[in-house]
Amino acid sequence: MLPQRVIEQLIDIVGESRLLFEADDLQRFGVDRTTLWQAAPCAVVLPGTVEEVQSIVRLANQCNLAIVPSGGRTGLSGGAVAKDGELVVALDRINQVIDFNPMDRSVTVGAGMITGHLQQFAEEQGLFYPVDFAASGSSQIGGNIATNAGGIKVVKYGMTRNWVAGLKVVNGAGDIIELNKGLAKNNTGYDLRHLFIGSEGTLGLICEATIQLARAPLESSVMVMGVENFAEIVDVLTCFSRDLDLSAFEFFSQQALDKVISHRGHTEPFKTETAFYALLEFEHSSPDILDKAMALFEHCVDVGWVVDGVISQSQSQAKNLWKLREDISGTLWQWQPYKNDISVRISRMADFLEDVDQLVMEQYPDFEVIWYGHIGDGNLHLNILKPEAFSVDQFHSKCVNVSEEIGQLLAKYEGSVSAEHGVGLLKKDYLHYSRSAVEMDMMRSIKRAFDPNYIMNPGKLFD
Amino acid sequence: MLPQRVIEQLIDIVGESRLLFEADDLQRFGVDRTTLWQAAPCAVVLPGTVEEVQSIVRLANQCNLAIVPSGGRTGLSGGAVAKDGELVVALDRINQVIDFNPMDRSVTVGAGMITGHLQQFAEEQGLFYPVDFAASGSSQIGGNIATNAGGIKVVKYGMTRNWVAGLKVVNGAGDIIELNKGLAKNNTGYDLRHLFIGSEGTLGLICEATIQLARAPLESSVMVMGVENFAEIVDVLTCFSRDLDLSAFEFFSQQALDKVISHRGHTEPFKTETAFYALLEFEHSSPDILDKAMALFEHCVDVGWVVDGVISQSQSQAKNLWKLREDISGTLWQWQPYKNDISVRISRMADFLEDVDQLVMEQYPDFEVIWYGHIGDGNLHLNILKPEAFSVDQFHSKCVNVSEEIGQLLAKYEGSVSAEHGVGLLKKDYLHYSRSAVEMDMMRSIKRAFDPNYIMNPGKLFD
Repeated sequence: MLPQRVIEQLIDIVGESRLLFEADDLQRFGVDRTTLWQAAPCAVVLPGTVEEVQSIVRLANQCNLAIVPSGGRTGLSGGAVAKDGELVVALDRINQVIDFNPMDRSVTVGAGMITGHLQQFAEEQGLFYPVDFAASGSSQIGGNIATNAGGIKVVKYGMTRNWVAGLKVVNGAGDIIELNKGLAKNNTGYDLRHLFIGSEGTLGLICEATIQLARAPLESSVMVMGVENFAEIVDVLTCFSRDLDLSAFEFFSQQALDKVISHRGHTEPFKTETAFYALLEFEHSSPDILDKAMALFEHCVDVGWVVDGVISQSQSQAKNLWKLREDISGTLWQWQPYKNDISVRISRMADFLEDVDQLVMEQYPDFEVIWYGHIGDGNLHLNILKPEAFSVDQFHSKCVNVSEEIGQLLAKYEGSVSAEHGVGLLKKDYLHYSRSAVEMDMMRSIKRAFDPNYIMNPGKLFD
Repeated sequence: MLPQRVIEQLIDIVGESRLLFEADDLQRFGVDRTTLWQAAPCAVVLPGTVEEVQSIVRLANQCNLAIVPSGGRTGLSGGAVAKDGELVVALDRINQVIDFNPMDRSVTVGAGMITGHLQQFAEEQGLFYPVDFAASGSSQIGGNIATNAGGIKVVKYGMTRNWVAGLKVVNGAGDIIELNKGLAKNNTGYDLRHLFIGSEGTLGLICEATIQLARAPLESSVMVMGVENFAEIVDVLTCFSRDLDLSAFEFFSQQALDKVISHRGHTEPFKTETAFYALLEFEHSSPDILDKAMALFEHCVDVGWVVDGVISQSQSQAKNLWKLREDISGTLWQWQPYKNDISVRISRMADFLEDVDQLVMEQYPDFEVIWYGHIGDGNLHLNILKPEAFSVDQFHSKCVNVSEEIGQLLAKYEGSVSAEHGVGLLKKDYLHYSRSAVEMDMMRSIKRAFDPNYIMNPGKLFD
């Protein structure tokens, strides 16, 4: 419970209507898309300016109040969960286009801007914001930056990190800091912008961002291919990416496809059923690109990697093929899946996939496991579905064991326990499989420098 | 002077022949390309493995010995100068290709590898290392990363930062840390890799790097255009970059061209003399690209921005046109130039250039000023030539005043006092024009975490 004195001070800062205590608000703003924790913030505050954010952080420092920054709450690792009486600071109202200059091809926006709105704004300017993923209709730019969101175009365009030219943040001590100011080149000491990107709200609040925009993409084609085993997906990837500038290379299993088709009413890409499907996309950078893609496809069939396939003949067909992949995440929610978002180098992918598959099949034969992911980035989403008979707690404690074993495999393969979803609450126990003790020490020292009273998103990333 | 006991311990680590005390070695390894400071290291040590680097750093901690990391020493800000009895740790011997996998399209190399050798290695694999600049024949990868080197292809390919997929470093405390391990996606807390990139040897020594390689570039054309004033160069840039995917956009003044032509024997790009020249490059991504470029050129002539121009008809002509720009830096050395390496956003470039020009003309009419730079990144190299009558010290103290005034302008325009050369010794007094007091505090805290005894490149970046 917030002391009356603090409530009054918060109302002084933001106004009464921007401080929320209703149970459904606390519930809504207190969780992300994970289902393992109960929302229990003390209140939700909705500042409208960077200065209001600063005042809130200073007040929180004075009364030792923990803050959970809140964006679109589409996170998958509990990074935005407020379960211990924290004050949720939601950036929703700081969501405007602040500055746009076509010469710079960059736009400064409030951190609360919805990703899809930024994509749309870019399109209206004849430009392109290339970070895209299933939740872009409700995720916010600030949250994307705080978690360095990835998605489906990383093969060509990289992660959110690549598109951040400047940040205005309030650190845990309540200082407003402007980082990099939208400059293309700026070698003036440590790049603190890159520290904030992916810091999951533990160093401060991202309030505004200057985002670099890309040139509008060319028309593209989508190809879906049926493949019988893991290793061959990597062969297909290697074959295509050697000769073609891919903008996406995704994969999903037959089980994933089955679920999407039966729950979303999509149609199969082709009649032949195979264990796995690769989906790739490429832009039409030259007129002979389609011939080249078809030749590669035929080669993959000839050597026996690919069983069947389809290439989009129109933009609407391309969209429909994408839905087979993009709707997986949303479809699986009803089974309260336990998500492993892991990565290794492409060259180690085939061996790693084999090892993980064997591990899961042997040790957890009663679990339904759904595979899909951004294989072009070495990124695998291993979803374990909750059997109806299991309670959430039972299921979670069983999954923790899976994660430990996968963590050990990842350490062996020098991979990452969180490729793109971040660490939050969900993965912090496994962080040591990807980051050394020395790195953890360095991270804690950095945390102390930016957030001396440890009020920013405590318990996330590390304890 | 090193105590005999320390000398013996260093010899134990690297062997006698790898510890240098000769005057010419101390001179050679004690400076970079700046001419303002005298080399005065206590010794030069050449470790051959990461473990040897670690042993050296641990020893340096025990006896409170300052270390200056040394790469190709092509730096322009004094970042690799050892002027106060420091131990130079030169990475020259750690220069091998350690691992290459075409599936990952990445290569792990020793930090001492020459940039040009990496470019050549990439080319042999049918790939491309796109960071390129005048000193790539002698600069080293580790130094490039420590200074986040930029160069002539940043418009399309970005800075060195964009190509670093992993680092093996020894921090100031003597810990070996592996950062990011070559992964495409890895959201496991603060990205310490990005802290080391651009840290100028103040956090530790970069020993190995995993470098992402690009697909081989397509054939490209180079265009040089004569322009009568600053503002129109930006107009030309905006016009071309809206419709063409440029891989470079450079500019230089008539004075710069004069010097290059008379000292290197190059020929003029065309007969008409203009105050400034824009050089741009684009890859032949589609067959109609040349027509598009010619149409843009004609438009620029029609509206009066461009007076004359030439487009390369062969790769050798393209190379020769590039030499007009690339040989400027080397040509100017004989005048011991004071270099300002500054940047603002493109949209502010025209106004900023006008202000700087006016400042220099009014206040320093007796100085010869040579302008050139990577205008496509908002990056301007303002070179002030030392008049023969001035001593180095006289000249430097006069230039310091120029820098102060330019710093004030940069603060007004939200620009950078060091776009791509780093801070080192040369720019640290002006750092406050680009970075706030809070940022400086944060940087110092980070320095403490990685280098608790303050032995790593002390006095560089900040005091």
